[in-house]
Order: sequence, then structure tokens, then C-alpha cells
Amino acid sequence: MMSDSPADLIITGCTVLVHDDQERIGFEENATIVVRDGAIESVSTAPATVEARQHIDARGQVALPGLVNCHTHAPMVALRGLAEDLPTEEWFNDVVWPVESNLTATDVALGARLACAEMIRGGVTCFADHYFSMDTVAAVVEECGIRAHLGEAYFSSQGPQGREKSLEFALRHRDGAGGRITTALAPHAPYTVDDADLTATADLAREHGLPVHLHASENRDQAETSLARHGVTPIEVLRRTGILDTDVLIAHGSGILDRDLPLLASAAGLTAVATAPRGYLKFAWPTTTPVRALRDIGVPVGLATDGAASNNSLDVWESMALTALIQKSTTGDPRWLTSRQALHHATLQSARAVGLGDRIGSIAPGRRADLVLVDLTGPHTQPVHDLAATLVHSARSSDVRTTIVEGRILMRDRELLTIDVPAVVAELGERLPALVDRGHGKRIQEYDT
Amino acid sequence: MMSDSPADLIITGCTVLVHDDQERIGFEENATIVVRDGAIESVSTAPATVEARQHIDARGQVALPGLVNCHTHAPMVALRGLAEDLPTEEWFNDVVWPVESNLTATDVALGARLACAEMIRGGVTCFADHYFSMDTVAAVVEECGIRAHLGEAYFSSQGPQGREKSLEFALRHRDGAGGRITTALAPHAPYTVDDADLTATADLAREHGLPVHLHASENRDQAETSLARHGVTPIEVLRRTGILDTDVLIAHGSGILDRDLPLLASAAGLTAVATAPRGYLKFAWPTTTPVRALRDIGVPVGLATDGAASNNSLDVWESMALTALIQKSTTGDPRWLTSRQALHHATLQSARAVGLGDRIGSIAPGRRADLVLVDLTGPHTQPVHDLAATLVHSARSSDVRTTIVEGRILMRDRELLTIDVPAVVAELGERLPALVDRGHGKRIQEYDT
Repeated sequence: MMSDSPADLIITGCTVLVHDDQERIGFEENATIVVRDGAIESVSTAPATVEARQHIDARGQVALPGLVNCHTHAPMVALRGLAEDLPTEEWFNDVVWPVESNLTATDVALGARLACAEMIRGGVTCFADHYFSMDTVAAVVEECGIRAHLGEAYFSSQGPQGREKSLEFALRHRDGAGGRITTALAPHAPYTVDDADLTATADLAREHGLPVHLHASENRDQAETSLARHGVTPIEVLRRTGILDTDVLIAHGSGILDRDLPLLASAAGLTAVATAPRGYLKFAWPTTTPVRALRDIGVPVGLATDGAASNNSLDVWESMALTALIQKSTTGDPRWLTSRQALHHATLQSARAVGLGDRIGSIAPGRRADLVLVDLTGPHTQPVHDLAATLVHSARSSDVRTTIVEGRILMRDRELLTIDVPAVVAELGERLPALVDRGHGKRIQEYDT
Repeated sequence: MMSDSPADLIITGCTVLVHDDQERIGFEENATIVVRDGAIESVSTAPATVEARQHIDARGQVALPGLVNCHTHAPMVALRGLAEDLPTEEWFNDVVWPVESNLTATDVALGARLACAEMIRGGVTCFADHYFSMDTVAAVVEECGIRAHLGEAYFSSQGPQGREKSLEFALRHRDGAGGRITTALAPHAPYTVDDADLTATADLAREHGLPVHLHASENRDQAETSLARHGVTPIEVLRRTGILDTDVLIAHGSGILDRDLPLLASAAGLTAVATAPRGYLKFAWPTTTPVRALRDIGVPVGLATDGAASNNSLDVWESMALTALIQKSTTGDPRWLTSRQALHHATLQSARAVGLGDRIGSIAPGRRADLVLVDLTGPHTQPVHDLAATLVHSARSSDVRTTIVEGRILMRDRELLTIDVPAVVAELGERLPALVDRGHGKRIQEYDT
């Protein structure tokens, strides 16, 4: 039953992306969305009769579930463009890890704030972050109003303290920021976290009901090196350490091999993969995430950008288009990964990948009110013969006009309401000389798959 | 010597992309650009002392040579999104060519106007168009102020009239619109124009001093079919018909084979290739334009979008980023096609590809004043560690704030000054039902490589 009191927000006149009971993508025209207490109360094509404290006239716009960045390192926007045109190992060892040795909590806060500004402007309402100084990132999430799935990263080189800190973070921040923050245990990867640590992590995950977010089989090299050194693939390492028995989000997986698929299939329902195809192209990796094979075994694939140090942006809209294009190209099949499939990855599959499949990812009554309004009046998105294709292949993240999380407007008509970008940029600019200094010769970690 | 009379336009406070005498990309900060009589009079970091009728304060912005779309079919924006997720032959035969049979001059005018609006908003100041009803496209170019290199396309199925019409168009519009229009002979492709017609075209090109713009070896299938049917590649057809002895712009060339390279090498200086990588991915073609091999033999490669019916946009900025990414990926070399190389393709090489290497493509005294101002204050383009990388991999076409052709401002602060987009969209919307009707069963041509 509808409440008689005014709703918090009403959006009228828009076309809404909806999912039917088979999860097929559809569109309802001239719809009204009513938001109350941070949730979607109704989506209707009947004339609006509800009063609301805020009203958005969204004629000419399309309402989509907010995009989810399923794997990033938000504070790394501070390193955007610092390590260009390099192979992966030089990128890590010669630039990224020496610079990350300099990171302070202040740098992380500034980076996270800039990243959230970029994501909100790009229509991202939730991001899964895997980084250091995550208390600071959590504070930024709290202050700017976005949703996040956070994990404090650790290496075995930190000793047991790394794992303990990751657990302590995950427990303390779970359901933080009024439910906008969820958490995960965040071992870095099988090549930087040993089997004993992974086994202990899996035990902790089960004991505390926590998911796990880690890098695994990022590329073919990692898979082949693991096979040569240990006789098993990184996915097989996840199996034997019990990680695959937890609710696990695997970042990248472009090195997933055919022999891994039965293991992932038996973990379907618990496992998801995040794909960030731009970086794989830029690093010239030989393969991309095997999205089609994962679809065939029921493993959801969410969209991601990775950090801006490799991806140069946190533009999930671009990840959506590139996933469609690169999947067509690598499978040799122009009929595969249609625009509607891309939108399914961007909505329900991405929500599931970050463990929020029952809360976000769809504009439907009862879901949290995380949504964006997209302007299709620009010449580059006209005419519209196929709205799904227009959204995936013609529209851009810059066409997002309004971004809403839990019913709160974080960007309205492209104006950010919760982050002062010029102030962040100015303060970050002062920090950069100290941040990028590599004279100390230290690295927080060595890349050696 | 500078004139004492006021200049037409002065742009102050910007960072300017410049080329040194080795064509290396550089940037001059806090520069002043003076424009007079449609040309760049000076670029200087000294304080401006010149008076001008118009002034743009471009602090925080970067001035780049306007982008050049080296191969498109502008009016096809009317078909944007109409034929999705199809193999090339179905796309042509079942949708595009039946719909093109319906095209009227009114449709072409509306499509061209919408396309020019999209391109001007995306920082494109010149486009090479290869289509039908080109008198209409020329009129749109005249009215909206953009620069264009135009050719009236023809098939041998039209008989000798096709070729004659293409010549008549090229001669009549050469140096039209106050020099903004240049022209080419425009046979469609070796698989739709027979050898006799190509030979006659080459003769006409030499006789009249006209360049040739055509599709050739678009994909590997075309090359292999040509070899199987005729024993020669499409590039070898261009050789034996004399087309390679003309000033020729080859669209796509993703099917160029190693055996073609010596032929193209001996035509270097006359030949250029336009690459539009997005469509190759979307059609799942097995190869992309061999940019590195073409660089090695001195053939310039310009950036392009093809038509929006395959590419879904006319976003040359995206073509620039995708060219960098796809070249890294397909060569397996992350060091190849750096951001500075991508900017070289986007500027000097694209200008050369459309035969305008001495007029545009560089911001330098004496060049025509075709340039764009790009805003890098957005969170997605901060901080700037490497300006070339920021431009290629972080900035987007939507960051272009101002577009100038021949010193005339066509877009200022993202407002289009010469095209009324809502009016064009409304009128085009009324035309669409008749345009997309395929009930007649006709095709203007059959795709059969």
C-alpha cells in the first residue's frame, strides 16, 4: 500500500530500462519513478498522483540502474598517465609500486575523492575497491554519498598482520554509511599471497560470512607461470585453498583456461568475475576475459575499469561498449554480446558480482534507488532506431545528466553536489611531487608471477 | 610582417599542441594564437599585443588542430542503430542497401546536417565523405562552415554514367565553399567497380589532377575472395588499373596483405589509408588496419569513423584512442603506438590522408585556422602527468568546448552556432518510416566480394 505522506523524489516523463521475469532488457516509455526512504517505491506508466518533496522532469531522458564499477583502485587516479606504454611488469615494478610506497592517507583521500567525482559524473553509483588505507576511502564514501564494496588489500609479505587488518577492516565497516558500504576480505592475488594465507582467508570468510575480492589469473602469463612453477593454474589455487567455496569476486580472469571452467562451474552462484577490457588492450595482453565461456557455466561477469593508472579513466560506460566490441572481435561472432546483453552485464550481472544482486542493478519496486538519467537529445545519439544500441554504442558517460544513490541526488544536470573538484585538484597538485618521487628505490611489493 | 589592423580572433592562455621540425608532438603553455583571414597568423608564448575583433580566454584548455574524419558516409547517421549485431554481408544486403534505395535528397540533407552537428561537437573540423547525392552534402558543408573532402560514389552497375557523374561533381565543387571543399573521384570499391572502370577513373584522375577515394581490401575476406576469383589482391587490382599512380585514399585496408606492401611502398607519397577500428571490432573482422607496417613503408594512416550505420557514432576522438589500444593489442607490443604517435595520426597524418597536408593538421603560422579547444578541468582528466596520454586516453570528444574552422567559431562552450539540432531531429523523425521501409525488396547494390 502506498503511503499518504509525500514521497522523497518523483521522476516523471522518462523512458525506463526494466528487466522482465526472464531478466530480458525492456524499456517503458513516459514512466514515473517514485522514490521513498532510499528505495524505489514504484515504476509506472500511469499518470503520477503521488506528491513528492523533490521532482525531476526527465522528458527526453532514459533512466538506467546506476553503473557498478566491479573492480577498481579508486585512489590510483592520482597516478593517471604516470606509467604509459609499458609492459605489465615494468609498469608495476618500475613505476606503480615504487610510487605507491609514498602514498599517505592524505593522498588516498584526495585520490578517492577525485575518483568518486569522476565516477558520479560517469553514472557510476557503486564501486568495488581493493586498495590500501581503506579507512580513508570509507570516509570519502560516507561523505560523498556513493555506494561501495570495500576491501583492505594485503600481501603475504606483510605477515599475518596483513590478513588480520583486512578482516578487522571488513568487520568494522560492514554495513557502514547507512548500508551503503559493504565489505570483503581482499588478498591481493595468488602470486603475492601464499596458499597458507589464502586458506586462512577462506576460513575467515566462512567464519564471518564475508565475501572475498582478489586478482586471479589476470592474464595468460600468470596462468602459464603458475602452471610451470606449481603445476596448477591460479584458479586451481583458489580451489585447493578453499577460496572458491566462498563468495568470491575474481578481478580480470583474462588468463582463465579451459581446465578452469569446471571448477568455476561448480562454484557458480558463489563466484563472479570483473572484466576491465581497456587495460588488457593497453598492456597488449594476448587474451581478454572469456565472457562467453563464463556465461555458459553461469558465472556472472561484471564491468570494471581497474585503476586509472592502467585504464586512464574510471569510465564504466566505456567498459560496457568495449566489452561488447572486444567480445565480438575475440569470438569472431558479430551476433554475440548484443547491446541488450551488454546492458545485462552492466546492470544485474554487475550488481551480483559485488554481492548486491538483491539490492541494486534493476529499477524495480523494493530496490535501492540507485539510478542515472541519460540525455539522448545530442546529435550523436539521434535518431534512435534501437534504444539498447543507442545506449551502448552511441551514448557516452558524459551523456549522464543526473546520478542518484539511495534516492539522494549526487549530480544534477552535470553539477556535482557533494564533491568540490577544483579544491581536490588543487590540493592533490601540491602533493604530486612527493608522491611521484622514486628516488628512494623502494617498492611495496615485487611483481613476479 | 604583422598587420596593424585588428586580427579576427585571438585565443589566449591556452596550452597548444605543436609539431617540431621533426614532426614530434610538443606542447607550449600559456600561448596566444592570432587568427586573421581564416589563417593562423602567429602562435606565441609572449604576451599578446595584437588587437582582435573576437577574443577567447582559453585558460585551462588545450588547443589542438581540429580532428579530421578521413572516411565517412555522413548522411548514414539516419541509419544509426538500424542494423545491429550482424555479419557484414547481412548488414549490407539485408538492411543498409535496401534502405539506401529509399534515400532522397531531403534525407541526405538532414543526415548530413545531423552528422556535421555531431562532428563539430566532437572536435572534427574536416571530413572525407564518400556517398550519394553529394551536391546536397556540399550545400550542407557550405551552410554549416565545416571543411570537407567530397566524392560522389559510384558502382559499375550504374554504367559509365556513374563515373561521369562522379567526375562532374568533383570538377564542379573543387575549391567550393571558399576553399573549404575539396573533391575526389569516388569509385565504391574493386568488388563493385570493374577493372575497366577503375582504369578509366585513374585516367580521369591524372587528366584532371583529381585524387581518388575508395574502399579497398576492407577486410581479410575481401582480399582472400579477390585472390581466389581473380588471382590478385584488391591492392594489386589498384596497381594494375593505375589507381595506385594517382593520389589515392584507401578506406580501411584491414585486409592488406604482406604481398601488398611493396606495391604500397612504391606508391608512398601518393597513397594514404584511413582506419576506422571500431567497426572492424563490431563486425568481428579478423584483422585491423596494419598501421605499423604502413608506417614502416611511409604510408600515412588517417583516423576515421566510417558511417554511423556501422560505427554508431562519428566520434574521431574515440577512433584515436581505439587505434592506440587496438594497435598495441594486435601487435602484442604495449610500447607501440604511444599517445604521441596517436596524436601524430590525428593531426599531420590525417591531414595528409585527405590531401590537405599543407593547409591543416598543425597549429602553425600560415596554416588554415581549423582548431579545437579542449577542457581538461574535469575530474576524469586530472591530474595531468603526461598531457599526450591525458588527451588520448582520458579525454573524450565531449571535452571539446570550442570548434573553429577557417577562423570561424562553429561551436562555443559546447553551443552549436550554425546548426539547429532539434529542428533537424524533428524533421528527420518524420522521414524515418519511409526511409527504413524495406517492403520494396530493392537494393542499390549487391555485396558479393
